[in-house]
Amino acid sequence: MLPTLSYAAASAKAPLAPYRFERRDPRDLDVVIDILYCGVCHSDLHTVRDEWGKGEYPIVPGHEIIGRVTAVGKGVTKFKVGDMAGVGCLVDSCRECASCKEDLEQFCENGFTLTYAGKDRHDGRVTQGGYSSQIVVDEAFTLRISDKLDPAAAAPLLCAGITTYSPLKHWKVGKGSKVGVVGLGGLGHMALKLAHAFGAKVVQFTTSESKREDALRLGADEVVLSNNPEQMKAHAGTFDFILDTVSAKHDLDVYLQMLKRGGTMTLVGVPDKPAELGAGALIFGRRSLAGSLIGGIAETQEMLDFCAEHGIASDIEKINIQDINEAYERMLKSDVKYRFVIDMASLKKEGAAA
Amino acid sequence: MLPTLSYAAASAKAPLAPYRFERRDPRDLDVVIDILYCGVCHSDLHTVRDEWGKGEYPIVPGHEIIGRVTAVGKGVTKFKVGDMAGVGCLVDSCRECASCKEDLEQFCENGFTLTYAGKDRHDGRVTQGGYSSQIVVDEAFTLRISDKLDPAAAAPLLCAGITTYSPLKHWKVGKGSKVGVVGLGGLGHMALKLAHAFGAKVVQFTTSESKREDALRLGADEVVLSNNPEQMKAHAGTFDFILDTVSAKHDLDVYLQMLKRGGTMTLVGVPDKPAELGAGALIFGRRSLAGSLIGGIAETQEMLDFCAEHGIASDIEKINIQDINEAYERMLKSDVKYRFVIDMASLKKEGAAA
Repeated sequence: MLPTLSYAAASAKAPLAPYRFERRDPRDLDVVIDILYCGVCHSDLHTVRDEWGKGEYPIVPGHEIIGRVTAVGKGVTKFKVGDMAGVGCLVDSCRECASCKEDLEQFCENGFTLTYAGKDRHDGRVTQGGYSSQIVVDEAFTLRISDKLDPAAAAPLLCAGITTYSPLKHWKVGKGSKVGVVGLGGLGHMALKLAHAFGAKVVQFTTSESKREDALRLGADEVVLSNNPEQMKAHAGTFDFILDTVSAKHDLDVYLQMLKRGGTMTLVGVPDKPAELGAGALIFGRRSLAGSLIGGIAETQEMLDFCAEHGIASDIEKINIQDINEAYERMLKSDVKYRFVIDMASLKKEGAAA
Repeated sequence: MLPTLSYAAASAKAPLAPYRFERRDPRDLDVVIDILYCGVCHSDLHTVRDEWGKGEYPIVPGHEIIGRVTAVGKGVTKFKVGDMAGVGCLVDSCRECASCKEDLEQFCENGFTLTYAGKDRHDGRVTQGGYSSQIVVDEAFTLRISDKLDPAAAAPLLCAGITTYSPLKHWKVGKGSKVGVVGLGGLGHMALKLAHAFGAKVVQFTTSESKREDALRLGADEVVLSNNPEQMKAHAGTFDFILDTVSAKHDLDVYLQMLKRGGTMTLVGVPDKPAELGAGALIFGRRSLAGSLIGGIAETQEMLDFCAEHGIASDIEKINIQDINEAYERMLKSDVKYRFVIDMASLKKEGAAA
């Protein structure tokens, strides 16, 4: 077993604190990754505070993981020691159902295995995430990371990147599309960069004039204040696709009205309360409201390669692991542009000192 | 001008009562139709009671119209005197916008002209519907009615038929599809017949065991009680498409969970209150919730020809115009299998007696 240092939550109310545990010895198809960077996702916070009701403590969160391969099982063919590697939200799935066979492991019909707070399919142990010194993952769920990518800024691609890339691709956003992005946070800022790179005309919806400059810098062609009825009216019925990244309860109809006939708005955030939805905006315009969940492993690799080729990564603020609890508080206030990424050197230094 | 007898509402609170008015003289492209039958749609009731806020009284409702051509304008080529003809929800549109050019007049970007409570694009008069002895309509918005169709039972095809046919076609329901129908009324019973004729496996969702026999007779392969969690669980994640015909506020998530990955549920009824929608059912399964509105004129003709060929029409209860107010009360209690159709001979007899 591999002694591993991490930061974990001991309970829903406890702050994250140092925690030592053992990773499994690598199986034949496993890759051992020395973690260099781990992005900080809202899901981490929801899970450690038991807001999604999955808690089996201690929980080591983190599913935006970038690191270097330090060992491989004897059957591994995709990776060798020294390679840069990434791990996202999933570390396994059944691999046999229709969804898995279509490279859509995120919809595994027998239940995927989450990177943390999941249950390993072989030994039944609870999985632990990337706020840790190392991780052991099957190569099939491990991503190749191009040298062209800055490893810290690439970390959030593993969740925020694929969560926005997948729906933009699925609903065929490209040259000639007019795309709206609702919300400008970790997900929204990636949506702007990606939709722009796909050649779409991109519009950021926001309630805050102060976000205009950043939105334009990140890839928006235009910013529309969603609380300004005149601006909204001028854009009504003109969008092919809208990606709604907001995870607090909000008005959906106002954005659905922005879609062209036949257009789709896709949700990627799960608000804790149901939204109110009038049928009219859908019916008068044959519009669709859809949802999308991260992406499959093959598509995640495609996204990483696309980002490497186009010089796309997340805007990040690097933090030390010792600052994670404060970072959570700032994240709750949306005080981050646009993703915290933990520099795992800070964890290892603490481990060495202890 | 053409003296016309009808039943109209004089105000939102008034019962329908005899009303004489004049139809326009036929223009070059107009068809004059002696109305034989008119279906009774929920929209009629909403409009005459001003529940949709469009009221300019008196209002003559009715947009499921079948009759015989008695005169044609000099430019008319599609119809001759003596032909059977139909008129649905629309009598005109701009004919120039992208939607009209794609035969989707129901999404006319400059505003379609409703068959009643609309405004004629040429003379500005309020349009009056089919609870009347005759109607004058541009041939472009007049449908051919095959001799194979029973004219009374065909009347509801003009609204209930096309409202269900169009989404089933648009979302490609056919052999190999598993389709659910929510609600078993005027729309629902047509959805069963049509989806069955398209070769799909059809499931009726209902809360009432008493509807089982009828649903199976109308085309359902199976009936699922939506208030029975075990039955619902057994069908979860198995539907390609669900057509939701219910126009009262109801739980959408419970039906969205029935869809396969990538499946669509389409709403055709507009509840008066917004529904509550959790994003989870959409996100975990990349599902879509959509809307659909009647159908274009070309598709309505296609539907009528399909129904003639396949021996499909509405299950109806014929009434005399003098019973219309009572029929409305029964309709509000869903006490009709499955559509009232007014026999206009009763109106003409009253007119002759007066």
